[in-house]
Amino acid sequence: SELTFLNLVEVEEQARECLTKMAYDYYSAGSDTCSTVAENRAYFSRYRLLPRMLRDVSRVDTCHEIFGIRSSMPVWVAPMAMHGLADSQGREVATCRAAAACGVPFTFSTVATSSLAEIQATGHNAAIFQLYVIRNRNVVRRWVTEAEERGFKALMVTVDAQRLGNREADARNKFTLPPGLALRNLEYLSAGSTAQARDSADGSGLMRLFTAEVDDSLTWEFIPWLRSITRLPIIVKGLLSPADAELAVQYGVDGIVVSNHGGRQLDFAPSGLEMLPAVVAAVQGRVPVLVDGGVRRGTDVIKALALGASAVLLGRPVLYGLAVGGQAGVERVLQLLRNEIELSMALAGCTSVRDIGPSLLLPPSRL
Amino acid sequence: SELTFLNLVEVEEQARECLTKMAYDYYSAGSDTCSTVAENRAYFSRYRLLPRMLRDVSRVDTCHEIFGIRSSMPVWVAPMAMHGLADSQGREVATCRAAAACGVPFTFSTVATSSLAEIQATGHNAAIFQLYVIRNRNVVRRWVTEAEERGFKALMVTVDAQRLGNREADARNKFTLPPGLALRNLEYLSAGSTAQARDSADGSGLMRLFTAEVDDSLTWEFIPWLRSITRLPIIVKGLLSPADAELAVQYGVDGIVVSNHGGRQLDFAPSGLEMLPAVVAAVQGRVPVLVDGGVRRGTDVIKALALGASAVLLGRPVLYGLAVGGQAGVERVLQLLRNEIELSMALAGCTSVRDIGPSLLLPPSRL
Amino acid sequence: SELTFLNLVEVEEQARECLTKMAYDYYSAGSDTCSTVAENRAYFSRYRLLPRMLRDVSRVDTCHEIFGIRSSMPVWVAPMAMHGLADSQGREVATCRAAAACGVPFTFSTVATSSLAEIQATGHNAAIFQLYVIRNRNVVRRWVTEAEERGFKALMVTVDAQRLGNREADARNKFTLPPGLALRNLEYLSAGSTAQARDSADGSGLMRLFTAEVDDSLTWEFIPWLRSITRLPIIVKGLLSPADAELAVQYGVDGIVVSNHGGRQLDFAPSGLEMLPAVVAAVQGRVPVLVDGGVRRGTDVIKALALGASAVLLGRPVLYGLAVGGQAGVERVLQLLRNEIELSMALAGCTSVRDIGPSLLLPPSRL
Amino acid sequence: SELTFLNLVEVEEQARECLTKMAYDYYSAGSDTCSTVAENRAYFSRYRLLPRMLRDVSRVDTCHEIFGIRSSMPVWVAPMAMHGLADSQGREVATCRAAAACGVPFTFSTVATSSLAEIQATGHNAAIFQLYVIRNRNVVRRWVTEAEERGFKALMVTVDAQRLGNREADARNKFTLPPGLALRNLEYLSAGSTAQARDSADGSGLMRLFTAEVDDSLTWEFIPWLRSITRLPIIVKGLLSPADAELAVQYGVDGIVVSNHGGRQLDFAPSGLEMLPAVVAAVQGRVPVLVDGGVRRGTDVIKALALGASAVLLGRPVLYGLAVGGQAGVERVLQLLRNEIELSMALAGCTSVRDIGPSLLLPPSRL
Ligand SMILES: Cc1cc2nc3c(=O)[nH]c(=O)nc-3n(C[C@H](O)[C@H](O)[C@H](O)COP(=O)(O)O)c2cc1C
Ligand SMILES: Cc1cc2nc3c(=O)[nH]c(=O)nc-3n(C[C@H](O)[C@H](O)[C@H](O)COP(=O)(O)O)c2cc1C
Ligand SMILES: Cc1cc2nc3c(=O)[nH]c(=O)nc-3n(C[C@H](O)[C@H](O)[C@H](O)COP(=O)(O)O)c2cc1C
Ligand SMILES: Cc1cc2nc3c(=O)[nH]c(=O)nc-3n(C[C@H](O)[C@H](O)[C@H](O)COP(=O)(O)O)c2cc1C
Repeated sequence: SELTFLNLVEVEEQARECLTKMAYDYYSAGSDTCSTVAENRAYFSRYRLLPRMLRDVSRVDTCHEIFGIRSSMPVWVAPMAMHGLADSQGREVATCRAAAACGVPFTFSTVATSSLAEIQATGHNAAIFQLYVIRNRNVVRRWVTEAEERGFKALMVTVDAQRLGNREADARNKFTLPPGLALRNLEYLSAGSTAQARDSADGSGLMRLFTAEVDDSLTWEFIPWLRSITRLPIIVKGLLSPADAELAVQYGVDGIVVSNHGGRQLDFAPSGLEMLPAVVAAVQGRVPVLVDGGVRRGTDVIKALALGASAVLLGRPVLYGLAVGGQAGVERVLQLLRNEIELSMALAGCTSVRDIGPSLLLPPSRL
Repeated sequence: SELTFLNLVEVEEQARECLTKMAYDYYSAGSDTCSTVAENRAYFSRYRLLPRMLRDVSRVDTCHEIFGIRSSMPVWVAPMAMHGLADSQGREVATCRAAAACGVPFTFSTVATSSLAEIQATGHNAAIFQLYVIRNRNVVRRWVTEAEERGFKALMVTVDAQRLGNREADARNKFTLPPGLALRNLEYLSAGSTAQARDSADGSGLMRLFTAEVDDSLTWEFIPWLRSITRLPIIVKGLLSPADAELAVQYGVDGIVVSNHGGRQLDFAPSGLEMLPAVVAAVQGRVPVLVDGGVRRGTDVIKALALGASAVLLGRPVLYGLAVGGQAGVERVLQLLRNEIELSMALAGCTSVRDIGPSLLLPPSRL
Repeated sequence: SELTFLNLVEVEEQARECLTKMAYDYYSAGSDTCSTVAENRAYFSRYRLLPRMLRDVSRVDTCHEIFGIRSSMPVWVAPMAMHGLADSQGREVATCRAAAACGVPFTFSTVATSSLAEIQATGHNAAIFQLYVIRNRNVVRRWVTEAEERGFKALMVTVDAQRLGNREADARNKFTLPPGLALRNLEYLSAGSTAQARDSADGSGLMRLFTAEVDDSLTWEFIPWLRSITRLPIIVKGLLSPADAELAVQYGVDGIVVSNHGGRQLDFAPSGLEMLPAVVAAVQGRVPVLVDGGVRRGTDVIKALALGASAVLLGRPVLYGLAVGGQAGVERVLQLLRNEIELSMALAGCTSVRDIGPSLLLPPSRL
Repeated sequence: SELTFLNLVEVEEQARECLTKMAYDYYSAGSDTCSTVAENRAYFSRYRLLPRMLRDVSRVDTCHEIFGIRSSMPVWVAPMAMHGLADSQGREVATCRAAAACGVPFTFSTVATSSLAEIQATGHNAAIFQLYVIRNRNVVRRWVTEAEERGFKALMVTVDAQRLGNREADARNKFTLPPGLALRNLEYLSAGSTAQARDSADGSGLMRLFTAEVDDSLTWEFIPWLRSITRLPIIVKGLLSPADAELAVQYGVDGIVVSNHGGRQLDFAPSGLEMLPAVVAAVQGRVPVLVDGGVRRGTDVIKALALGASAVLLGRPVLYGLAVGGQAGVERVLQLLRNEIELSMALAGCTSVRDIGPSLLLPPSRL
């Protein structure tokens, strides 16, 4: 009953009250000057929508499917670390249940505070496993195998975070995992690792964990190796350059997420939305292209699709919903977004996701 | 004597003091992020006017006529719901009398708190009836017939509101019709409807009424049907796309209002002014093209005409004038606007509305 | 000694303290939304200067001459009404003396609080008479003859103020001439006129005076008539359109001031600087082209000259200097501006006004 | 331990607390309206970086060499007057030691509060001497000879400050050298000079010193003369125009710094970054081109290199670091910047300075 937020911007304000400063900063911040975080929102605002009138909009269908994964709307929950900071009881499990209840796919981060088994136990039939490639390939292989066995529907390989971005707020807060939470997937690693994430003597513990474990010598050769050990669709997340998209397709990925990691990696990287058309042009329909970063409104989703995206990932608002209301909070976030998509489609004269095309867009205005 | 506002921006500040929060929010707000409300104003600012000097401007004539409807200036009062929120005694009747006193056409909304008979009784000989097409076509037919019989001069069919935009302020305020007011035109509907608009248990009652009654399966086929039951000029209001303008002309309308409904429907829709030139180009003079959204200054009216509009509709300032000073307040609003148009025409070197053309405009600056 | 302002922006802040609200508002304000006042400043900011290095700048000469009128810098004092509001003792006489002391031409407004005889008595040998053309041509002829006899060096005919702009601050303040001041040139008119300007029963008295006396049927035919009664150079002030500049030249003017009257006439008129290049192109060197509006810095003067102006008029800062320090205040204003011009020329690699050309400018950035 | 600043913007806030107002204003301010100071930062923001993914970034090398001068990163400390205002004990000596500790070249200003001998004594093997050319060429010759003898590695001739820019804050503060500090290089001049800089009876003493001593009749002929008396590389600092760059090369310079002197000379000069591509195009690789003004982030350095710079100069943050923490403060400034460069290179997919090229850049967005 306390869930009074009316949109995905408002939920952030409410979450800010609920979260510790350390958690809020970790969730909200970007790297360096946070210019890319701002750009992610600003870029959506540059596009205006040209609606069409007097089309029969008595039935508007927001349903959507890619990689055989069905969704009640063209939105997936983005992989995000440590839901336990928002809801130490519910954690990723609560988010996953909310996503299941709303018919929305859920991406489970490597850096989760829940286990693959717990996600399986929710019964969500559209969970995706996000993979940070660490040096220890035996552990990588074990994760992939387990994800496949536990019914995950795809793998999302993050390629923009071999090094962690310079998030000053975390350094200032000496960000560390609070007691009572564990990075469950990392338990396959030597015992020291989680401890490391918890130790905050000198700045962000997460930063140190990454430096220690994540493989910063990774190259595209990883994709064929991964292909050889799994039958799941492989989606790469975190590229921006059309040239990288071309490489991704050549190395055999099944899908691409154009993303700047929510403005948390290279500062002054362009928004995913800005690069989307060039990536779509490079990919030429060979694989689906998703996009994320800054999606907050139903009209944002429509803009992304009109620019060629197959779907969008939704990040922070999910964590904020979880902080404000646990599973119910996430459900409200997803429901509000679906309502906005549905109403905006109706107002724009679209009755199905397929109706959303470039003719809905006016040329971008200047930032 | 308390009418001290000097322009149509100031009247809003004063009205804000007079109105309940619920009423002010309802009048002022837009949908979602209200980006389109802001764009409506911003877009006018992009245009600058290049005046001509030393033309004899001792006589400046602001008079204007379209559809055989004469006006003391190229401005009509826009159709707006529920004037009774601003002046529960005067309601649309007071506005209509003010418009008559100033020689300005008045558009009467379907969702009025006065009746067609009351408007007729004002003796205004330039009233237009705005039509929301509801599922019950018998009632639609009855409205049209009655409007015609009561001397209304044209029908304005609103085509951008088959679904109501997401106005969060109204949801937050649980917007509902205050006691003592009734949606008089809706009394032809089953008794439950007005009651519905009044019930605010769960968010905006108006939203529920729309969902229940307005026909969201409407298509352009409605125009020929309407043509078949009336001899009045049919003006469609609320399209933005040149393609829709082409359809409108093909389906036989007599006039078009390029409008985004004051930023209250699809958020991120462009301003009417932005789309006006493209619509004018598509229509090629076959029918007059009006525009609305954000008109607040005499120079705005001149800009709209210079971009090809035959006239503009004036929205919110009329309601604000009504709130501040009843009929006299509306008269002052209209008088101030006429004064500004007249003086700006003189300063720009124009002596009649016909003198206002594209050569007055400089290329738009960037937003 | 209290003259502490360091530039022509700061002097406004200090003047605001010295002046009555009525006077400050009258001096500072623009018409309607004051968009053109803001644009006048903003447009200068769009231009950047590309300096050249290692030119011998040990001697920088800012001197300048047009119409045989010499100046210590390419700046004239603009015609402005009622200096007596800033300094009721000194009035235009103090300003004129300051201009003379600094070697700067002074333009004396029709609407002055001093007389032609008083200006002559200052001994300034570079005074210009600004002419508002009123209906009573006998009085116009008398002014012109007297100006010529009293040694004025040119006539500046203002062509953008046959009607007075809508200055809301003046209406709000019921602007009127304070006791002890008289519009001395208007004493040639029937006794009632100055009284009229003083009566503030209903809004700006100045507005009423203008409406009563100024000839709003004026056309370009006035120029040949004026030519026929005087040997002084005739400069028209207040056009913006290149087409009007062409007319002005054809009707025989000797010079042009591209101006929007300091943003006090048609709101949303472009800045003079914006139109300057087009006017210069139209005039093709047949007569000198000056510009005004928003000049506050030495770099502004350099930008105007680089865009083709022969000189600039300086408006409000002169009145502010007068308010802050009487004659000495105006001298400081002019001295600071000359210092800035001289230093900026040196830093840019220019040693004389003739060196200032288009190659100093970079393409304008966007507003 | 009190060195808590996390980046080169934050250090300014902390320095503001440590410095006297006179010193802070002198360090931070620009000329006139300070538009160029702002532009220096704004222009960097216009560029976004397009990162490449999945390149092996386990070894990122930020090392760099030009003119045989090696650096741990493509950054030099800019020449700046009077470090003694920040740290009256440490002065330039402390800065130089910090630069040496970090492997970064240090440029020593003519207007230093330390002597050439003191710099030599630090043992830094990559010091550059910045030369203000004064009228007294015997002193100039003596400086050059001494710099060469004391092991300085290059001469940097500043060409944009034959006259000092109009820094109003200094005039307001009557800026003067505090007791206990001396302009050591100027001691070769007649005894009166430093005294002059100290006397603040009427505005900035520095301004008067410059007017008295610096040679404002300097031309490009100075370069061959300088060439004839030294074997050191000659770098000119402070040009913006490609035409000046062409002259510089023709007159035999070995390097160019595109610079507007930190916005302290001609106001409304463009940022060095803006002119960099045109200068690089004019120079066609004949000599290295450096740039400065507004560098605050690792991504700024990458942007400058991607636009063709060989290296950047870093100005104010060095002084701020010195104010906050003496030598250790400067070391932290340099270390933070190196960390940011290294991490940003890794995130962008670059492993050496040579990898940084134009393909990293997206077209500039509008200011
Ligand atoms: C707190 C937080 C943690 C994140 N953790 C991961 C992660 O573990 N793996 C990953 O691929 N992306 C991660 N991301 C990036 C998101 O998947 C996504 O790209 C981004 O948040 C989308 O932008 P948005 O938050 O503006 O919607 C994280 C983002 C946030 C805000
Ligand atoms: C409070 C309010 C109620 C409105 N009601 C109606 C309506 O009943 N029918 C309609 O066609 N348009 C309606 N509109 C839209 C107006 O006709 C018009 O398009 C818009 O207000 C113009 O923009 P402006 O208010 O900025 O001048 C309404 C607008 C407002 C502000
Ligand atoms: C208070 C005031 C009075 C003015 N009076 C006159 C006038 O009597 N005649 C005229 O031609 N222009 C008049 N102007 C316009 C100025 O000549 C000039 O065009 C304008 O002030 C230049 O802009 P600036 O004030 O930004 O420098 C007046 C301007 C001001 C501010
Ligand atoms: C306080 C201060 C003193 C300076 N003194 C000199 C100087 O003596 N010689 C010189 O060539 N440039 C001097 N400069 C300019 C710098 O070398 C450099 O061009 C500028 O500071 C770079 O911009 P940044 O401060 O934004 O990094 C000075 C700059 C500052 C801020």
